[in-house]
Amino acid sequence: MPNFIFLCLLFCTMSTYAKGGLSASEILKNSNSKDWRAVDNKNVLYMEIPNGRVIIELNPEFAPRHVVNIQKLAQEKYWDGLAIVRTQDNYVVQWGDPNSEDIKNKKAIKSAAPTLAAEFEVPLNNKLLFAKIPDRDTYATQTGFYQGFPIAYDSKAGKMWMTHCYGMVGAGRNNPPDSGGGTELYVVIGQAPRHLDRNVTLVGRVLEGMDLLSTLPRGTGPMGFYEKEKERIPIRSMRLASDVSEKEKIALEVLRTDTKTFNAWLEARRNRQEDWFHYSVGHIDVCNLSVPVRRK
Amino acid sequence: MPNFIFLCLLFCTMSTYAKGGLSASEILKNSNSKDWRAVDNKNVLYMEIPNGRVIIELNPEFAPRHVVNIQKLAQEKYWDGLAIVRTQDNYVVQWGDPNSEDIKNKKAIKSAAPTLAAEFEVPLNNKLLFAKIPDRDTYATQTGFYQGFPIAYDSKAGKMWMTHCYGMVGAGRNNPPDSGGGTELYVVIGQAPRHLDRNVTLVGRVLEGMDLLSTLPRGTGPMGFYEKEKERIPIRSMRLASDVSEKEKIALEVLRTDTKTFNAWLEARRNRQEDWFHYSVGHIDVCNLSVPVRRK
Repeated sequence: MPNFIFLCLLFCTMSTYAKGGLSASEILKNSNSKDWRAVDNKNVLYMEIPNGRVIIELNPEFAPRHVVNIQKLAQEKYWDGLAIVRTQDNYVVQWGDPNSEDIKNKKAIKSAAPTLAAEFEVPLNNKLLFAKIPDRDTYATQTGFYQGFPIAYDSKAGKMWMTHCYGMVGAGRNNPPDSGGGTELYVVIGQAPRHLDRNVTLVGRVLEGMDLLSTLPRGTGPMGFYEKEKERIPIRSMRLASDVSEKEKIALEVLRTDTKTFNAWLEARRNRQEDWFHYSVGHIDVCNLSVPVRRK
Repeated sequence: MPNFIFLCLLFCTMSTYAKGGLSASEILKNSNSKDWRAVDNKNVLYMEIPNGRVIIELNPEFAPRHVVNIQKLAQEKYWDGLAIVRTQDNYVVQWGDPNSEDIKNKKAIKSAAPTLAAEFEVPLNNKLLFAKIPDRDTYATQTGFYQGFPIAYDSKAGKMWMTHCYGMVGAGRNNPPDSGGGTELYVVIGQAPRHLDRNVTLVGRVLEGMDLLSTLPRGTGPMGFYEKEKERIPIRSMRLASDVSEKEKIALEVLRTDTKTFNAWLEARRNRQEDWFHYSVGHIDVCNLSVPVRRK
């Protein structure tokens, strides 16, 4: 017993998970093809900007109406020739129609809806396979992943929603909750602004090209808006991956989040196995896990 | 009673803090001069890089030996002519001697120590005035602020430490815990990597110029290191603010974190008062609060 107490004095504040397991990168190296999910190209957007392509995956389970509307907007080429209008440090990059408030000069919307009822949260669907994070979260009672998207849910309230982590894409809105719809989109480029959860409709996440957005010059106007027209970054086009030619397609796979491999990867991230680590905290925040993506 | 239950069904998952108070920005507008603390120039570093000046405040209470060593390194002009060698997206910018592993070509250190015993955590000092955050944290039992620096502490273990939030500056190290010392520094430019807490010595935070670092091109080598020498960003100089001429000084003030004004600001951030918010979560993470800084 004294020995136990002595050991406990030394180690009990340290992780309960001993080192010696595989590291997160070793687990990915050992994964097999069934651990990865091919993305569905009809839910993938290619945003072409002067410095390259940003690839976004939409999540129809968590924002069904917005996803359909965004698909329509892409198919009617709504964003082509519009621009990135705002880059606020440690917060968001936002794009859409710079003239959206100008009735005469704003770009016409054809088949899509200009605004939609909000999808801040949706009814909890227990049939979806959730990978739960076992650690407490500051903002929600439970967090986890659905098909690689970071989520939170509340069993009592019977609601689930996506969380504002780095790389998540949402539909900007004005003050009325139903004033968004997908014409104006934003991406999180800093510390997860989780106070926005359940306040804006999230629609998906960036799978590739985050650095093309995160390195953009910060706007000098209020909220990071670009003050001069020439500072804006033009959008050459925004298309569904299913609508571009075969040679333009990039086949991506996302690590499945309903597998033993994912659970092992999560544990290795909660309890770092690399020699560099002196102390392993044994906890992790949903926004400290960016589910791996690879080219096929 | 039925009315209460009815109301509760509508509102009980919402914030318990009603709207109608001042917003965080209104509270800052109404603050008076006693709510602000002038920074002590002997604890302030000016890093001059091609695109401007980055201003860093050191925290001698939480990393006393490292702060003294960094002051010596600045005074012997150690960093002048060295470079930013690494920028990893959603993680860190790091600078120091690109030849640090090359015994023949590395820059000589004069009065400072090349390495120091780690200061991952220090004994808890209850005399320091901590502004506590009342919400649960994923990584620590208690978080808060000391003089604007984000911190965590553990009363049982009797330890306190700074936390890896956006803009925090730390002393890079190799695998042995005592292999750092301040010659190589890094700044967090993404989602708070809180798993690094108690694994690296944090020394301070950036007060001004974060966007000069966060927009740097991401390195294409492993861990975001720049692969070519010409990609590195040269450091013109790094000086203590107390050592530059009067006309080169920039007087900064930081919002005090031991005042009623700070508590009101914290509450307004936990419970957003702005009309835009549909839902107020009533919680906040220590890394979602960047304590305000202003020019005097």
